Amino acid sequence: MVQDDRLLEGEEPSGFQKLLGYRLVEWQEGRAVLELASEAIHTNRAGLVHGGVLTTLIDTACGFSATWCPFPGRVRRVLTLSLTTTFTGQARGGVLRATGLRRGGGRKIITCSGEILDAAGNLIAIGEGTYRYHGGSEHPEGVPLP
Amino acid sequence: MVQDDRLLEGEEPSGFQKLLGYRLVEWQEGRAVLELASEAIHTNRAGLVHGGVLTTLIDTACGFSATWCPFPGRVRRVLTLSLTTTFTGQARGGVLRATGLRRGGGRKIITCSGEILDAAGNLIAIGEGTYRYHGGSEHPEGVPLP
Amino acid sequence: MVQDDRLLEGEEPSGFQKLLGYRLVEWQEGRAVLELASEAIHTNRAGLVHGGVLTTLIDTACGFSATWCPFPGRVRRVLTLSLTTTFTGQARGGVLRATGLRRGGGRKIITCSGEILDAAGNLIAIGEGTYRYHGGSEHPEGVPLP
Amino acid sequence: MVQDDRLLEGEEPSGFQKLLGYRLVEWQEGRAVLELASEAIHTNRAGLVHGGVLTTLIDTACGFSATWCPFPGRVRRVLTLSLTTTFTGQARGGVLRATGLRRGGGRKIITCSGEILDAAGNLIAIGEGTYRYHGGSEHPEGVPLP
Repeated sequence: MVQDDRLLEGEEPSGFQKLLGYRLVEWQEGRAVLELASEAIHTNRAGLVHGGVLTTLIDTACGFSATWCPFPGRVRRVLTLSLTTTFTGQARGGVLRATGLRRGGGRKIITCSGEILDAAGNLIAIGEGTYRYHGGSEHPEGVPLP
Repeated sequence: MVQDDRLLEGEEPSGFQKLLGYRLVEWQEGRAVLELASEAIHTNRAGLVHGGVLTTLIDTACGFSATWCPFPGRVRRVLTLSLTTTFTGQARGGVLRATGLRRGGGRKIITCSGEILDAAGNLIAIGEGTYRYHGGSEHPEGVPLP
Repeated sequence: MVQDDRLLEGEEPSGFQKLLGYRLVEWQEGRAVLELASEAIHTNRAGLVHGGVLTTLIDTACGFSATWCPFPGRVRRVLTLSLTTTFTGQARGGVLRATGLRRGGGRKIITCSGEILDAAGNLIAIGEGTYRYHGGSEHPEGVPLP
Repeated sequence: MVQDDRLLEGEEPSGFQKLLGYRLVEWQEGRAVLELASEAIHTNRAGLVHGGVLTTLIDTACGFSATWCPFPGRVRRVLTLSLTTTFTGQARGGVLRATGLRRGGGRKIITCSGEILDAAGNLIAIGEGTYRYHGGSEHPEGVPLP
């Protein structure tokens, strides 16, 4: 498995990524996969993985799927316009795996879908997102890292 | 402002609530308000409040709006079936305020809407959720705290 | 009540509007209201108003709310990027009234919410939409009618 | 291709199905496919297939995917709780093909996803729906036709 720090080379994970602890384990044009080893910090009042954790994984996997940038020292960014999540199962813990895929769109707007499987391969959630590129990020070469 | 620990009396905040740090500041039948003092831990790669933080606040505010329980030592629980969020603005930090309202549904299924304002009163996000009561939680008296 | 043909002056209703029979009864910057006298042609297999009728009304009311154009002979157009609908009640017939409101967005992208009431004032559905202006339609003066 | 009237044997198509003209062309447990030969009656003000047509097809294909009933003279029914649609492309006419799949859920609540392809195989829209069975329809044998 490719390491997160290789995938995000040169770029620090976001504050929220560090807080939740998910890792980017696959990343290519139009596709990204995250993994999260879910723990007590991720649970809701009923002891299940919080819906907000699942929506975050879908949003993030979709966003990464639209921002693959193979050029060292450069990065692409999107802004989420809308996000939906349908909870198809219940996440009782273990490693969750979220896949985001770019499904359509044009030069500035991208549409994606995502899904989350638990460690046993059960489908936990599906979702859709619409994203807009930040200026400069429409192109594969993106913009320089800050 | 009513304190969170009064509102959730007898019940420990969830793991994810403690991790993110939002507080329940108003709670009544069909309505709940959360506040979050957003920080660097809540940000995405672009330095804005992560979409997953906003979806979490909407999901949680809506869920609380459906589970007010005025009976000491008792609690009500819902399961999120679906959640949508439309990002109407950008959250650049400060205190975010999320309101959830029950809008319809029946005995077992409840539908809610939510919105988030930033400290300046700008609308940051709107959302909708569909929820199902856990067994026993359909009634205002809910179930005993574990 | 202002007549539909006054509101859409110079512009023919769309094919789908004529098929369904809804009427634009209020239209101003950031807000539009449609009415539909629901009939047997609008029903699903269970005899209720079809969910697709309700999603159409929300999409259309929201789209009109973003395309008010007070200039004679000119028009504004949007493309729907995403749409959500939460069914808060059941529509058993009668006149349905759908309101669309612009809630946020920027120069090219607009976010809206909508809701539908039945003749008794019951809330039947709520929804959210994200829209993109066609070229030229970002401005209030829009583009010439074809 | 199996004929619509075979698939819906004994049951009249709904009023809205007859109005729009879509046909059920595949139907089995957990999966349904509809086709619509799009025409001028299905278009929006810009001359494209109206978003409401696409949301209707996704809602309907998903609903059928949850209500396959192999028992003659019997039928199953669902109520849509929520529906989302993300428009991944633009439908300029021709035959549209909508597929609905059941993705999860339990005894009373079902979650589905749908997608629409145009005649050239381009992805036009994706969507998700949450449904609740009417009483008696949880079971494959459903209820007697009225």
